[in-house]
Amino acid sequence: MMLSKNKIKYIQSLKDKKRRMEHGTFVAEGKKLVSDLLVSCQCQFIAVLPEMLYEFAHLKNKGVEIIAASEEELKKASFLKTAPPVIGVFYQPENDFSSVNLKTNIHLVLDGIQDPGNMGTIVRIADWFGIEDIFCSPDTVDIYLPKTVQSTMGAIARVKVHYIDLDDFLKNNSELPIYGTFLDGENIYKTDLSENGFVVMGNEGSGIRPHVEKWVNRRLFIPNYPALRTTSESLNVAAAAAIVCSEFRRRQ
Amino acid sequence: MMLSKNKIKYIQSLKDKKRRMEHGTFVAEGKKLVSDLLVSCQCQFIAVLPEMLYEFAHLKNKGVEIIAASEEELKKASFLKTAPPVIGVFYQPENDFSSVNLKTNIHLVLDGIQDPGNMGTIVRIADWFGIEDIFCSPDTVDIYLPKTVQSTMGAIARVKVHYIDLDDFLKNNSELPIYGTFLDGENIYKTDLSENGFVVMGNEGSGIRPHVEKWVNRRLFIPNYPALRTTSESLNVAAAAAIVCSEFRRRQ
Repeated sequence: MMLSKNKIKYIQSLKDKKRRMEHGTFVAEGKKLVSDLLVSCQCQFIAVLPEMLYEFAHLKNKGVEIIAASEEELKKASFLKTAPPVIGVFYQPENDFSSVNLKTNIHLVLDGIQDPGNMGTIVRIADWFGIEDIFCSPDTVDIYLPKTVQSTMGAIARVKVHYIDLDDFLKNNSELPIYGTFLDGENIYKTDLSENGFVVMGNEGSGIRPHVEKWVNRRLFIPNYPALRTTSESLNVAAAAAIVCSEFRRRQ
Repeated sequence: MMLSKNKIKYIQSLKDKKRRMEHGTFVAEGKKLVSDLLVSCQCQFIAVLPEMLYEFAHLKNKGVEIIAASEEELKKASFLKTAPPVIGVFYQPENDFSSVNLKTNIHLVLDGIQDPGNMGTIVRIADWFGIEDIFCSPDTVDIYLPKTVQSTMGAIARVKVHYIDLDDFLKNNSELPIYGTFLDGENIYKTDLSENGFVVMGNEGSGIRPHVEKWVNRRLFIPNYPALRTTSESLNVAAAAAIVCSEFRRRQ
């Protein structure tokens, strides 16, 4: 139909972080995700099956390029096993957090999360529990990697992800509660939890690294059960994030 | 060195479920995972770098074949991006649960979980919270798929995973509490939770299917926050499992 070879090539090039940074864009696939993003992100163009064109036609007024594409073309452009009926290319939002009030609400801090699935799951958890900002070390997996974008299931449209030097950032906010989970921490079920502050989650293999750990001023522990049973050494980082966020919100 | 081409071929063939069923075996990679499994599973053989041979030498008395293998050989046999220093082939344990007392403790029930990473994470959660048996629909991803085995991080050595017809199984146990999470369920933080029963987690896309849902007699809901904010439609299934299991154990 009309999704040009050049556009297919461009979409495919966006699996590469360098290309994404160059263009300041990223790819999202599927009706739900594209629709969610259209609410909050500026769209460069959308490629969609002719029979679904009418659902996106109103975007033309907003200056969005709408391209009718064949199944074959979408298949070539897609990163998924099964090509979706719609693919969108969006502009990465400005990652400015100067207007974020860091003193209220809970914020997540990710120290070197590597797995795109874990990253997507954590963004969904943040979204579910009304955590609007996530601060990541520069070596945390890129939120705009196609795999990560997909695994957020749309939560990426509502949660802001910032990549920053955590050492500096936590230093500047060290008067606020900074939580982390450790095997020698306090029982999370029985400890007072504040209504604001930061919750640090660490790398899949090595956990929270020393230069970040030194800023943690409230050490938590998710008790295993029964306490004396030989068990896994740790929970998966996304599972731990889910439990910690749930505990914070349960008290509120 | 001495890991034969035939053995490499055999290990590689075990990524295929048919071959795994034929041989009744599965592959585990890495020192931690292999060591954890040696405690609970019968081992067919271990291929290990010469410099680590001494750590496994005592197994010879137990009739386990120990093979010194070169890095090159392990690389050919491995399913991982980076070949580990040790690969083990283990016999799948008998999945008999007739001796399990279903009336005590909490058990997980998985209805069509597809993602190996979610499956591994859920087995780790079960292990952490002392849930010893997981009952899965036959179409749930195979626990012995190499990807799933690895993502359990050793928890597979302590948690028993049973594949059964859930409809029949839940029918036979319908006098016990059977929990599931739904958007119209009761606030999990405020509801009484029993010390025994089943917790059903559903498929990533379609949730708990009707033929399983009809046996759920306690509907739970994990509240989003704040209640009226537009949010993701759901949590990832492993994140939900983590929160539900944590809530059950918090009360005990």
